[in-house]
Amino acid sequence: MSKTPIVEVINFGDELLFGIRENSHLTYLGAQLARYGLPIHRNRVITDEAEEIKRAFLEAWAHSDIVITTGGLGPTADDMTRENIAEALGAELVFEPDIEALIQARFKVVGHTMADHHRKQCYRFVDGEVLHNERGTAPGMAYQCDGKILIMLPGPTNELIPMFEKEVIPMLQALGALSEEEAYLQIRTFGSGESSVEEIMQPVTKAYPDLTVAYCVHYGIVDVRLSSLDRKLSMEQLKAIGQEACVLLGEDFVCFGHCSLAKVVFHELRALDRSLAIAESCTGGMLCDAFTNLSGASKVFVGGVVCYANDVKVSKVGVPESIIEQHGAVSAECAIAMASGIAERLSTDYGLSVTGFAGPDGGNEQNPVGTIHLGYHSPVGVWCKTVRYAGGRLDVKARAVHAALDWMRRKLRENKVAEFLSCGERD
Amino acid sequence: MSKTPIVEVINFGDELLFGIRENSHLTYLGAQLARYGLPIHRNRVITDEAEEIKRAFLEAWAHSDIVITTGGLGPTADDMTRENIAEALGAELVFEPDIEALIQARFKVVGHTMADHHRKQCYRFVDGEVLHNERGTAPGMAYQCDGKILIMLPGPTNELIPMFEKEVIPMLQALGALSEEEAYLQIRTFGSGESSVEEIMQPVTKAYPDLTVAYCVHYGIVDVRLSSLDRKLSMEQLKAIGQEACVLLGEDFVCFGHCSLAKVVFHELRALDRSLAIAESCTGGMLCDAFTNLSGASKVFVGGVVCYANDVKVSKVGVPESIIEQHGAVSAECAIAMASGIAERLSTDYGLSVTGFAGPDGGNEQNPVGTIHLGYHSPVGVWCKTVRYAGGRLDVKARAVHAALDWMRRKLRENKVAEFLSCGERD
Repeated sequence: MSKTPIVEVINFGDELLFGIRENSHLTYLGAQLARYGLPIHRNRVITDEAEEIKRAFLEAWAHSDIVITTGGLGPTADDMTRENIAEALGAELVFEPDIEALIQARFKVVGHTMADHHRKQCYRFVDGEVLHNERGTAPGMAYQCDGKILIMLPGPTNELIPMFEKEVIPMLQALGALSEEEAYLQIRTFGSGESSVEEIMQPVTKAYPDLTVAYCVHYGIVDVRLSSLDRKLSMEQLKAIGQEACVLLGEDFVCFGHCSLAKVVFHELRALDRSLAIAESCTGGMLCDAFTNLSGASKVFVGGVVCYANDVKVSKVGVPESIIEQHGAVSAECAIAMASGIAERLSTDYGLSVTGFAGPDGGNEQNPVGTIHLGYHSPVGVWCKTVRYAGGRLDVKARAVHAALDWMRRKLRENKVAEFLSCGERD
Repeated sequence: MSKTPIVEVINFGDELLFGIRENSHLTYLGAQLARYGLPIHRNRVITDEAEEIKRAFLEAWAHSDIVITTGGLGPTADDMTRENIAEALGAELVFEPDIEALIQARFKVVGHTMADHHRKQCYRFVDGEVLHNERGTAPGMAYQCDGKILIMLPGPTNELIPMFEKEVIPMLQALGALSEEEAYLQIRTFGSGESSVEEIMQPVTKAYPDLTVAYCVHYGIVDVRLSSLDRKLSMEQLKAIGQEACVLLGEDFVCFGHCSLAKVVFHELRALDRSLAIAESCTGGMLCDAFTNLSGASKVFVGGVVCYANDVKVSKVGVPESIIEQHGAVSAECAIAMASGIAERLSTDYGLSVTGFAGPDGGNEQNPVGTIHLGYHSPVGVWCKTVRYAGGRLDVKARAVHAALDWMRRKLRENKVAEFLSCGERD
């Protein structure tokens, strides 16, 4: 294919329209295709009704080069995507004994025989391809006609993802619709808002007119995606531009790619061969959770205490009662005592702490709801920091976790030489 | 409106198509509208291009009674929904001084003056209504013509939600498109798979042909939504049917509505005026997090220890070293020691614990990856339970958290009388 093909994704499923489930298929397919330089142009979600399927499909087919459908390939009566799309296209479906043999084999493994209703899953387009489903009975289908490509994928996520990665991406690459290599470079930043990052990036974005820059914000993280959709800039050139941007961004630069803030901190500590413990109050386990989402976390993260009640701050983290009496549990002083206390009690090199009012209740004049105190204990010093966020309880928790992680990331980089030297002292 | 109107939602925004953000607007609007008996029939996501906006809008308008758009109402050049839809409809936009005054007032509060590009936000349809935006500059718009309704909402979630709840729902109710009361009853269940729940529900679903039953599964929770989309059954009747279903479901019944498992356990403990502490290893803070997401959690939840390293299990939770040596840290014995140990150390009535292999590494012959041991310490006894899940690290963590909460919920109900009597003993 010479020009960038127009892609439309059609998702079948009432649960997406009734607000029961998020349309994660669109997010997944959008991210995967964008990664290889093929943006989705249009998406629609429709109900499983014969007339609706045919009408929507023909509209999509008329205005697109590639149509990808998800769902409706199951064995039950309300799975009728296959038949209706074939009818709309005027294309013939033929029974494929190979599919039947595979489904029968699947059932045999678990000691069952294939029920009759699975026979409807054994059809393919007469000149079409079958996409192997390694996790379920419903095979996917691919079909080319009128110079266009139709791809039909099963609904369950654990079936769709391996099929898309192992069958569809290579097929689209072979047809020249997808680039062989990644098409954009993501720069993750933290510390400045979207419009400030846009301003910081201006010298770069103005210098390269072929560059497309997209921004995405989530809980304080601002991701910048550098791309060149018509591929006028190579990945090498994008990387060089990324380096320039990195210099402009300074300390706000977190990483290239999609690393979580917890992973960035984890890597820094891993490189220093150091250990970490956490004491958290208002974030209630979410900060520990961010570390333990990483495979291999135990090499750095020893453990933490969720010291929700003040008694636990005193008895399990070693915060002096006098500090809580004098300053309250939501205070910079308490945050520092928590960070140092947890590092000492769990015998780790580093301690990170969070205490604050996540809301909706609590708070006082000095520390209104949304006030968060962070504490940081390290071999080269001890610090505290105060931040404040608007929003609901869950938003404030998520923002506080990101703030703590980003602050630790900055401290680790700021003191890199001292941190490194302190490793020597220890040994 | 006499029959159920056909609703289509159009979302504008490349970030949804490029996989940068999930289409949470669709989920939100779908859940809200379904709640009042008006299912979304169709959804499309399109890019902000003039021709695309006009074509997609006209397709939607031709096949729907109500069209709701989100996004594209901002002040910048790529916000062009308003103008293009007006052009497609052949409807006139007029400058509305009241909107300008409101935007100017917004800027004045923060000491700025309104920039010229905000003037494009000050238009409304000549016979249309303005929907007040209490959180941003972009007002929404409502317009009726050809017996159809057009509603245009701003993109930012914190602006869209209050506008939809305060302006759009009452408007659609006044027009008779939305029911005045909730239209479905949700039953939350845990313990049986979707198809088993479907089977358990059969006596009820067969007895009421006007009943619509929808299922939704997430991390072991199976939600059952009872509704009657054409409103042949009243909410009172749905509630009576719900009671019948509740009896059939037995212990699998969690609650009516959307309560989290943590909240159900929280309410049980609150009613007993009892306290809880948590010790968790492989779930790494996620179980504590589930409790601390609840406002007022501190009335029950005292704190927890994320005892990731074995040393921490011994020193901070009181697991005997001999148990770890004999059985390993991933064992039923260790889970029980963790539950009792944390309850004792934090002086709580109840202790809940999780230890296991979340993967992808770890595991052994007896306890392969995905094996989770739960421990439960209560005033009326101590128990352990073992579960096993397939899936990635994050899936296993989420399933393990739900399993622990559901198990505690069952234990609390099973021993309700004894638990209640034990309260008396304490006082």
